Amino acid sequence: MGKGRIEAFSDGVIAIIITIMVLELKVPHGSDFASLRPLLPVFLSYALSFIYVGIYWNNHHHLLHAVQQVDGRAMWANLFFLFWLSLFPFATAWMGENHFTPLPTAMYGVVLLIAAVSWIPLARTLICSNGGADGVLGRALGGRGGDWKVKASLLVYALAIPLAFYLPVLSCALYALVALLWIVPDRRIELHLKHSA
Amino acid sequence: MGKGRIEAFSDGVIAIIITIMVLELKVPHGSDFASLRPLLPVFLSYALSFIYVGIYWNNHHHLLHAVQQVDGRAMWANLFFLFWLSLFPFATAWMGENHFTPLPTAMYGVVLLIAAVSWIPLARTLICSNGGADGVLGRALGGRGGDWKVKASLLVYALAIPLAFYLPVLSCALYALVALLWIVPDRRIELHLKHSA
Amino acid sequence: MGKGRIEAFSDGVIAIIITIMVLELKVPHGSDFASLRPLLPVFLSYALSFIYVGIYWNNHHHLLHAVQQVDGRAMWANLFFLFWLSLFPFATAWMGENHFTPLPTAMYGVVLLIAAVSWIPLARTLICSNGGADGVLGRALGGRGGDWKVKASLLVYALAIPLAFYLPVLSCALYALVALLWIVPDRRIELHLKHSA
Amino acid sequence: MGKGRIEAFSDGVIAIIITIMVLELKVPHGSDFASLRPLLPVFLSYALSFIYVGIYWNNHHHLLHAVQQVDGRAMWANLFFLFWLSLFPFATAWMGENHFTPLPTAMYGVVLLIAAVSWIPLARTLICSNGGADGVLGRALGGRGGDWKVKASLLVYALAIPLAFYLPVLSCALYALVALLWIVPDRRIELHLKHSA
Repeated sequence: MGKGRIEAFSDGVIAIIITIMVLELKVPHGSDFASLRPLLPVFLSYALSFIYVGIYWNNHHHLLHAVQQVDGRAMWANLFFLFWLSLFPFATAWMGENHFTPLPTAMYGVVLLIAAVSWIPLARTLICSNGGADGVLGRALGGRGGDWKVKASLLVYALAIPLAFYLPVLSCALYALVALLWIVPDRRIELHLKHSA
Repeated sequence: MGKGRIEAFSDGVIAIIITIMVLELKVPHGSDFASLRPLLPVFLSYALSFIYVGIYWNNHHHLLHAVQQVDGRAMWANLFFLFWLSLFPFATAWMGENHFTPLPTAMYGVVLLIAAVSWIPLARTLICSNGGADGVLGRALGGRGGDWKVKASLLVYALAIPLAFYLPVLSCALYALVALLWIVPDRRIELHLKHSA
Repeated sequence: MGKGRIEAFSDGVIAIIITIMVLELKVPHGSDFASLRPLLPVFLSYALSFIYVGIYWNNHHHLLHAVQQVDGRAMWANLFFLFWLSLFPFATAWMGENHFTPLPTAMYGVVLLIAAVSWIPLARTLICSNGGADGVLGRALGGRGGDWKVKASLLVYALAIPLAFYLPVLSCALYALVALLWIVPDRRIELHLKHSA
Repeated sequence: MGKGRIEAFSDGVIAIIITIMVLELKVPHGSDFASLRPLLPVFLSYALSFIYVGIYWNNHHHLLHAVQQVDGRAMWANLFFLFWLSLFPFATAWMGENHFTPLPTAMYGVVLLIAAVSWIPLARTLICSNGGADGVLGRALGGRGGDWKVKASLLVYALAIPLAFYLPVLSCALYALVALLWIVPDRRIELHLKHSA
């Protein structure tokens, strides 16, 4: 079973998710600066989510790059991950339109957390069907302290979610911090491919 | 006539169908739990439809994987199938926003039924143009009790649709049951390809 | 300049056009048959437009299949064609929501007419850059009475547009007739490819 | 790291951007000419933006055509560019619905300006990772007076933005002029590829 179509389908879904988020930037009726101002938090949350979906696309690209085979299990793991990713537009718009009030900000963190958690079975399934822990992908992701970035992200999300009910601004700062951590793509796979080449 | 573009176009359409369904999860104006509660049935019907479209994408992938040639007839059979699949967002939203009332729940079943029925000419046309009942695809799909899953699904839909006017919750349970039946992808094609390899 | 990306981009745009039309099938607030009835003309015009966009995708596929090279001129001719095709969702929704009243029905015909006209420079440009009238594509499209289907379609549209102000139902019947004429894909190219092979 | 998926993803995002802009052409409730007239400025700004996004897609196609390798830096430069491009639908709709009033017209120019500026790091990053200024891409883009079109565009945008507060119609004419300048695709790359072949 080739990986071409799973890449094409995921690219399509991720491209649509990243683009329909901009539809929440509703066109204001007035044409002065005052009518633009309430859009600022919507714009900021759009920018943050664009970065997050970009990170996931980037890592998805890296993950499948090192993969030779995709079986039925991996397809469902991929769809499971895409399902949670598809809630980004909703969570983003709710947080932005309510100007970072507690519950929407916490809910945004919950969606980030679930998406991060649903990434794990996708990576695991692909490692399993591509040589296991000793395959190229397995060694690439398992080495050098393992998935410390994944673990750190989950920890920060788990902290930021309850924090949103007291200091939602700080939660947003933490979400942005995790994004920053991931903007550097996962070079481990690239390095390993070079070493094994 | 290659199969590359029919795959790319179908991937595009299915990716858009699966993603625009989330647009029906309208952002609430309030920012408390109470404003989130009416969205629960919309979310549940979105999740069910996401699984169904995922199943169809998966099976579409499997079906075309075993195909060498696509002629004009198959293209129209594919478009005919995609047309009914494109009604999922409407049927899903109508059922979800009306909190599983009888008519929308029955209508959701009707769309499931027509999509399942329109899958049959697509499979038949592709079998015909790829060696017939004795080709790889024909033997893969015809063997071992034939399309019992297709038949069982059609039967359950036909039961669930009238049932929706009395017990819509049970109809939904039946729809979910059929989805469960299909989450295991059609391994027959994979197995046959292995055997004939 | 390869043709892969122009195919991929066109597939994407056409897939989105064909799918966003279904968004005009607005979810009704009631959950009885009465609330579904006003959607019937919207559904019918959606079905007609789905067939038309399907025809164009099919012919686009056939056209580019016989092409080896795509230059800058062909790219702009393609974008010019896609621009008019992108007006289908608007024209479809306007005709459907106004229940086939004269002006929207005429306007739908105008969009059909312009899309058909904008197809001509696309076909011409691709013929020019692929061996001219004596190339595979040129001979395939030029032989056997030439583009009689294109000419017949343009003629019928030109008749149906003014007719819409008197008998819009008849105009719709004529639009459907032209669609029927085209559902049979352009076998000339397929045949020629076989003969020259 | 291959360039296939970055092309596919960019094609998807650009195809969605160019197509969702048409959703702002809201279907009017009336069915006479009078109800169509307020849509004219929306249609005109849609046409202008369609041309602009078409230009960017064309140049993106040309740019990546000459590229062999895409690294992590180029992916982020590409996402950065796509982010600003994704603001086209918003800027287009705001300008169109307000009938070319000063602030929305100036804001449209700002989005054009930022998109043009964000194109520069994308081109630079790709040149760097593909042989630098002496590689095929570097020589193609650096020769013959360099990026005079980019510089001229930036200059015209910078003039048109403040001008919008006095003569918004003239600003729109300037935006259209820049579009005209770019409709001719960047033949430098095509020529260089031929020469080096």
